[in-house]
Amino acid sequence: SGKLGTKIVETARKIKKLGQDDPRRIIHSLKFGLALTLVSLIYYFEPLYKGFGNSAMYAVLTVIVVFEFSVGATLGRGLNRGLATLVAGALGFGAHYLASLAGEKGEPILLGLFVFLLAGVVTFVRFFPQLKARYDYGLLIFMLTFCLVSISGYREDEILEIAHQRLSTILVGCSTSVFICLFVFPVWAGDDLHNLVASNLEKLGSFLESFGVEYLKISGDSKESNNTFMDDYKSVLNSKQSEECLANFARWEPRHGQFRFRHPWKQYLKIGSLTRQCAYRIEALNGYVNSEIQIPAEFRSKIQEACTNMSLESGKALKELASAIKAMTPPSSVTPHIVKSKDAANNLKSLLRSGFCKEIDLLEVIPAVTVASLLVDVVCCTEKIAESINE
Amino acid sequence: SGKLGTKIVETARKIKKLGQDDPRRIIHSLKFGLALTLVSLIYYFEPLYKGFGNSAMYAVLTVIVVFEFSVGATLGRGLNRGLATLVAGALGFGAHYLASLAGEKGEPILLGLFVFLLAGVVTFVRFFPQLKARYDYGLLIFMLTFCLVSISGYREDEILEIAHQRLSTILVGCSTSVFICLFVFPVWAGDDLHNLVASNLEKLGSFLESFGVEYLKISGDSKESNNTFMDDYKSVLNSKQSEECLANFARWEPRHGQFRFRHPWKQYLKIGSLTRQCAYRIEALNGYVNSEIQIPAEFRSKIQEACTNMSLESGKALKELASAIKAMTPPSSVTPHIVKSKDAANNLKSLLRSGFCKEIDLLEVIPAVTVASLLVDVVCCTEKIAESINE
Repeated sequence: SGKLGTKIVETARKIKKLGQDDPRRIIHSLKFGLALTLVSLIYYFEPLYKGFGNSAMYAVLTVIVVFEFSVGATLGRGLNRGLATLVAGALGFGAHYLASLAGEKGEPILLGLFVFLLAGVVTFVRFFPQLKARYDYGLLIFMLTFCLVSISGYREDEILEIAHQRLSTILVGCSTSVFICLFVFPVWAGDDLHNLVASNLEKLGSFLESFGVEYLKISGDSKESNNTFMDDYKSVLNSKQSEECLANFARWEPRHGQFRFRHPWKQYLKIGSLTRQCAYRIEALNGYVNSEIQIPAEFRSKIQEACTNMSLESGKALKELASAIKAMTPPSSVTPHIVKSKDAANNLKSLLRSGFCKEIDLLEVIPAVTVASLLVDVVCCTEKIAESINE
Repeated sequence: SGKLGTKIVETARKIKKLGQDDPRRIIHSLKFGLALTLVSLIYYFEPLYKGFGNSAMYAVLTVIVVFEFSVGATLGRGLNRGLATLVAGALGFGAHYLASLAGEKGEPILLGLFVFLLAGVVTFVRFFPQLKARYDYGLLIFMLTFCLVSISGYREDEILEIAHQRLSTILVGCSTSVFICLFVFPVWAGDDLHNLVASNLEKLGSFLESFGVEYLKISGDSKESNNTFMDDYKSVLNSKQSEECLANFARWEPRHGQFRFRHPWKQYLKIGSLTRQCAYRIEALNGYVNSEIQIPAEFRSKIQEACTNMSLESGKALKELASAIKAMTPPSSVTPHIVKSKDAANNLKSLLRSGFCKEIDLLEVIPAVTVASLLVDVVCCTEKIAESINE
């Protein structure tokens, strides 16, 4: 029972952490419960139930599948579902009508053929990456509705009546979801994308800053100190998918806060991909934080200043860029840091050119120098993009 | 109309390419059409329709949402749907019974409370990353079924009868999907994962091989030649998500081909993450392929042999590892390549130690050397993992 006890405590701790990491999760759960309870009122009030009949179920169903975490995702799903249902319903009705012309024997055969063709084509279309990203759910619902309408038309006579009821309940479900998502503590995918891109830049910046201090100054002495904090940047390496997801959601969102309806979300993806380029370099750099190779003291004292400056200044530049993005201001305060880091890089170059490397072990000093000079390039690159978004 | 013409041609080319890239997509579309047509037969044959009644629609619906590209994904969704429906149906019935004890006025209030609580809790649980990866669909269906059963129980009297009909049609839908997925040209997520991991290693290997030849031997002469081919490795950088997806699907799959039911899929994820480590280094290395910096001829002639060997041999080692994974044999033929690349690295080290770097420009020769020596480490690492999986 001691084992069970620790397991329960463990789980409770996990639950608490999940809520603390992002309290919006708890709010989202409550919002979802609220939307579902509201929609199920249709069942409990006689007059409402009379209007919708048995199709009231579709309102509940719609809320469950449409209600998502962010406004963009919910709007996207709602629009996908609404439009796909309308178009597919009309098409399905047309197919039902066409098939019924073929007589009692021909009808099932024609219907089967229609369903087979449509299902095959739509399934294939879903493989297109661009369509999959934005309209996958719509295509699924399109297929579903077409099949339901055309096939069930074979058995039901009041097909138009049923279609009308279902469409209106689906609209009720969609609008309830969208309404609650929009007006009760809304979560904007655009904001999330904005913050994600900025915080990724910041993570790289703080890595570089602490790299400059920790590794280059007192190499070998206190390696264990801030190591966990320096691993923050690793999440940047695999951020591509979540950025693309958020950008897709954000495109559905209306004007909110500082964002217009057609905010240039693609720019964020560009910045994100440049940030990852930089992160790959930092990942290579990080390989040397824990390496056992000692930089010879004599050489270190010579290049130390230049390297520390490069690392610190490029780190500061990245952090400034991050806060410029957050505040949506032109990154004017970045320029001095970039100039300084470039100066440091040039100093280092001339140091190395001056040919003082006679009795040092070339291999041992290579890494830090290489990657730091790389980083200067990357910072320049990031600056260009940050400027372009603030135009 | 000329513009429209080119657009049509463009789209047709895209469609063709999508099919040629992976012909299994076309087969999957046909399989899906087949499954749907089979299930809709319930509607056309009188005796079948009598058995299932109006709930026959649920068989069509189930096929549309459960049928996925790979066997693992379909099995996962089918099991999720089946189990979730059963458990939630029973719970929903219990909730309906409890609420009905509260009298006419209390029933809707109690029902609303149950729905609110369950929806909130399940929505929160869906945020757990581990549960989201494998049981997200099941949790959704769980909520859906619970609401449908408990709420509609308020209006329908033959609730048990309906539940029974729906469950059996859902089972028909699931089993049709799984049957066709399993026995008509099955697509195994496990195979895909296996091939993805191997081909990622191969991509890195060919990059290193051509890097050794193209860049180090004739630097500056024919840079444009094989560049597009050398960009293949870039897809490795962002392969994490797809590998994890495939591994999740693969865990649902039964024994097939050379794979047991509980094949160590996690090992593939480990290899994959080491491969990415290596790819990050190569990404840094790639920055120098197009760089304008010329390596001084004198220095180049001295380190050329060692660098070329390191690059070629580590490339060969990675390729051997890839084919060892593909053939599922112990990677015995890898060892000589790794030994050779290590020898080359040691040669380079002693070359650099011998202090011939008196009048060269240190900065210009750093990059190639650094990253090549990095790669040797990564190859060793990859070898260890490849061995561990072939145990």
